Amino acid sequence: MNDETKNAPRASARLPRGLSDRGPAEIAATERMLAEIRQSYELYGFEAVETPFIEFTDALGKFLPDLDRPNEGVFSFRDEDESWLSLRYDLTAPLARYVAENFDKLPKPYRSYRAGTVFRNEKPGPGRFRQFMQFDADTVGAASIAADAEMCMMAADTLEQLGIPRGGYVIKVNNRKVLDGVLEAIGLGGEANAGRRLTVLRAIDKLDRLGVHGVRQLLGPGRKDESGDFTKGAGLDASQAEFVVGLIDPEKNAEDHVASIDIRLADSRIGQEGRAELEQIAELIAKAGYDDGRIRIDPSVVRGLEYYTGPVFEADLTFEVPGEDGKPIRFGSVGGGGRYDGLVGRFRGENVPATGFSIGVSRLYAALKAVGSPIVSAKPEPGPVVVLALDKDQLPRYQSFVAALRAENIRAELYLGQSGMNAQLKYADKRGSICAVIQGSNEREKGEVAIRDLVLGAELAASTKDRADYLELRAKAQFAVPEAVLVAAVREVLDRHSS
Amino acid sequence: MNDETKNAPRASARLPRGLSDRGPAEIAATERMLAEIRQSYELYGFEAVETPFIEFTDALGKFLPDLDRPNEGVFSFRDEDESWLSLRYDLTAPLARYVAENFDKLPKPYRSYRAGTVFRNEKPGPGRFRQFMQFDADTVGAASIAADAEMCMMAADTLEQLGIPRGGYVIKVNNRKVLDGVLEAIGLGGEANAGRRLTVLRAIDKLDRLGVHGVRQLLGPGRKDESGDFTKGAGLDASQAEFVVGLIDPEKNAEDHVASIDIRLADSRIGQEGRAELEQIAELIAKAGYDDGRIRIDPSVVRGLEYYTGPVFEADLTFEVPGEDGKPIRFGSVGGGGRYDGLVGRFRGENVPATGFSIGVSRLYAALKAVGSPIVSAKPEPGPVVVLALDKDQLPRYQSFVAALRAENIRAELYLGQSGMNAQLKYADKRGSICAVIQGSNEREKGEVAIRDLVLGAELAASTKDRADYLELRAKAQFAVPEAVLVAAVREVLDRHSS
Repeated sequence: MNDETKNAPRASARLPRGLSDRGPAEIAATERMLAEIRQSYELYGFEAVETPFIEFTDALGKFLPDLDRPNEGVFSFRDEDESWLSLRYDLTAPLARYVAENFDKLPKPYRSYRAGTVFRNEKPGPGRFRQFMQFDADTVGAASIAADAEMCMMAADTLEQLGIPRGGYVIKVNNRKVLDGVLEAIGLGGEANAGRRLTVLRAIDKLDRLGVHGVRQLLGPGRKDESGDFTKGAGLDASQAEFVVGLIDPEKNAEDHVASIDIRLADSRIGQEGRAELEQIAELIAKAGYDDGRIRIDPSVVRGLEYYTGPVFEADLTFEVPGEDGKPIRFGSVGGGGRYDGLVGRFRGENVPATGFSIGVSRLYAALKAVGSPIVSAKPEPGPVVVLALDKDQLPRYQSFVAALRAENIRAELYLGQSGMNAQLKYADKRGSICAVIQGSNEREKGEVAIRDLVLGAELAASTKDRADYLELRAKAQFAVPEAVLVAAVREVLDRHSS
Repeated sequence: MNDETKNAPRASARLPRGLSDRGPAEIAATERMLAEIRQSYELYGFEAVETPFIEFTDALGKFLPDLDRPNEGVFSFRDEDESWLSLRYDLTAPLARYVAENFDKLPKPYRSYRAGTVFRNEKPGPGRFRQFMQFDADTVGAASIAADAEMCMMAADTLEQLGIPRGGYVIKVNNRKVLDGVLEAIGLGGEANAGRRLTVLRAIDKLDRLGVHGVRQLLGPGRKDESGDFTKGAGLDASQAEFVVGLIDPEKNAEDHVASIDIRLADSRIGQEGRAELEQIAELIAKAGYDDGRIRIDPSVVRGLEYYTGPVFEADLTFEVPGEDGKPIRFGSVGGGGRYDGLVGRFRGENVPATGFSIGVSRLYAALKAVGSPIVSAKPEPGPVVVLALDKDQLPRYQSFVAALRAENIRAELYLGQSGMNAQLKYADKRGSICAVIQGSNEREKGEVAIRDLVLGAELAASTKDRADYLELRAKAQFAVPEAVLVAAVREVLDRHSS
């Protein structure tokens, strides 16, 4: 496109894996989603705060799930003074740093929300990205289980606000203290067993996908998947594994689960604390009427992040979508959260109670597309009015047409390429424009401009001359007007096609 | 705030230098700014596109100004397969990658805009951050100087749209080809002199700050600043330096500058190309009426980025603000851009004409604060209605009050901390709330709630009992209503203070 000779390219035009570009439709749809979530969070009294993308590595800590090697999962680099910096992997760890840094001046409880991009240095896969967006709300400084119950109710309200119908989702609630009691009861308490505890939790977390049999294998010696890959298990014996399985039945209702904890974890202080919290949250949810299927206790919910200390929640979409192999699968998780009383304490030396909920914006965007939510499916804005540039020495005049349209708040542009009239009209079609403005020397000499209705023009091109209203259509598809009424004529054409 | 004993903190709650958090007022103001800029760019027919934060290092190239060491200025890290990745340092280099990657399917010219955070691994200073936001528009595939003229006019329109009054800014235009002609004329042409050319351009770029004398020093042996630090110069002799200085006079008008180029660069092909482009852009701007001080030719404009190949522009705010030493200084640059015909060509082996403009959102935010633009100075939204939690066993009932308010789209929250009534009211004040809802056992037994007007309450507290309307004020500042009319009573209080 230039007079220079063609050379070998010096760089390759591609993105690193797990990253992607976004076009206008996805950007506009995401903006609408974010506006709805923001409105819902604000209605609950949360206020905006934002932290930067980069933090000191040790301020973020290492709480990511599914990491076999240390330092994996996070993009890190050294600052000039050799200290380690990282891109944030979630919005909770940076919030904990923010609250600790501004502790004395913040109202307590401190209720805040933020949307932001986070980064995971993981192996990317289908639907699994290394950069994605989350939208979090957190209440810091509230030990009350009512704060956790509120997170669950807000999650439900927000999903409905976004167009997920009631019955199309469920907010599942569990408690890490119950799981801690289970682990203690099978002899996995104490610092020395931290690694094995994590392996057990990860096994439970796979119940949804692998079923009870698969989880039993992962609790025991290990499991070979369809591809032949072997995942080493937690090494529990059969009775230990059975004990765990008995306390993570996702179908068990809240009362039965509580009763079962009372029997099996009768001697566990932490287990009984968890039971009491489960009972409280179930009561608050029932009294608020959210026990109609919107929110329910699910003993199998774990949530991967290591920093949770009490209630944990997961927002699951229950409708089915075609899976990778074409078979229908449940859409699954679009968000989650829980209580993290120790996270702010890392900076302060004393724990600060805190709970939060995070929506996976990119996952939810895919879900809203699947249910045809109008928020993401609105038809795109039409393109701008294109003023053709037929005579290069008339650019200032064409530019004045464009300026007149813009002054009346009509999106408009001058064609700025080098091509001829047909290519310019094709360009306008490609932009999704409704109207083009044309002035060749004929029109100019008469002080006129031709207004072309590109929608009717396309219709005309597809029709035949036998058509009864052919002449009428042709007259409407392109007509000449005096320059002075350019704006009114363009608006007439735009109004024809506005809905 | 928890029953655990206090321990030594395990991490330090602070941000790396050059990074900062943002509170609700700044976030809301920035959103309003971005909306105005977006509207202005869309009116000009640009459409949204976004690229990720991370790119292959070699896709971004090295075009940053003021870098004495290679690789400085950019945050980089290795991917698992050992390839180098970087955080983007601007939005233009990633756009060039995007256009090259999607070249065949994009309309041409391709007109797009994007707002996004960029990162510079530089020494931070006052007002100089390592993470900041830019808002760019670019036209790729248009060789016409009309595309550059349009960028300048859009920059002017956008600043006015944002509340910078006409006369409070100027868009300065120059041409890199003229500067290239100057460099060639003093014998600095060719690959071997690339480093010295850059030193000369950097010296010119400092004309605004250092004046002609300072620039002469930097063109010659070098310059010692007030602190005694010595900056090595370009090593030009006196006649070379004089030749340069004669062609960068910022006060010279377009005609005189063009005449002077015609004489001094009569034999320079590139210089004459630059002159022709300057004449064209001046004509387009004059015919569109923007030569009334909104846009003008300024022979001293350089723009730091190395990839510019033709017209360059800079948006300067001309009003004065107090400088670091208290003395008034011109606010200076809030954006800039130019033609970068080679940037897409790095990926395609043939040049693709392109031009763009970038607004420094964070700089402009500071400027809008300085001129008191309503876009950034709007008073903050009031806080949510706070329902006090006086009896812990009544949480579900309090929760139902909150739910009733939210159902009528009134921002509301339940107080979730552990403190008593006075502290709860103080919390509501700290949140900027207008109204609190109170129900102790007295009110509950009567089936009532007390509605407290926190604005009148503060007025009451500051007044004396002698005040004629004291009793009336007290009755309005807190009153009891039946639970059934809670929402109407709250709305009445909110309406009192809405403006």
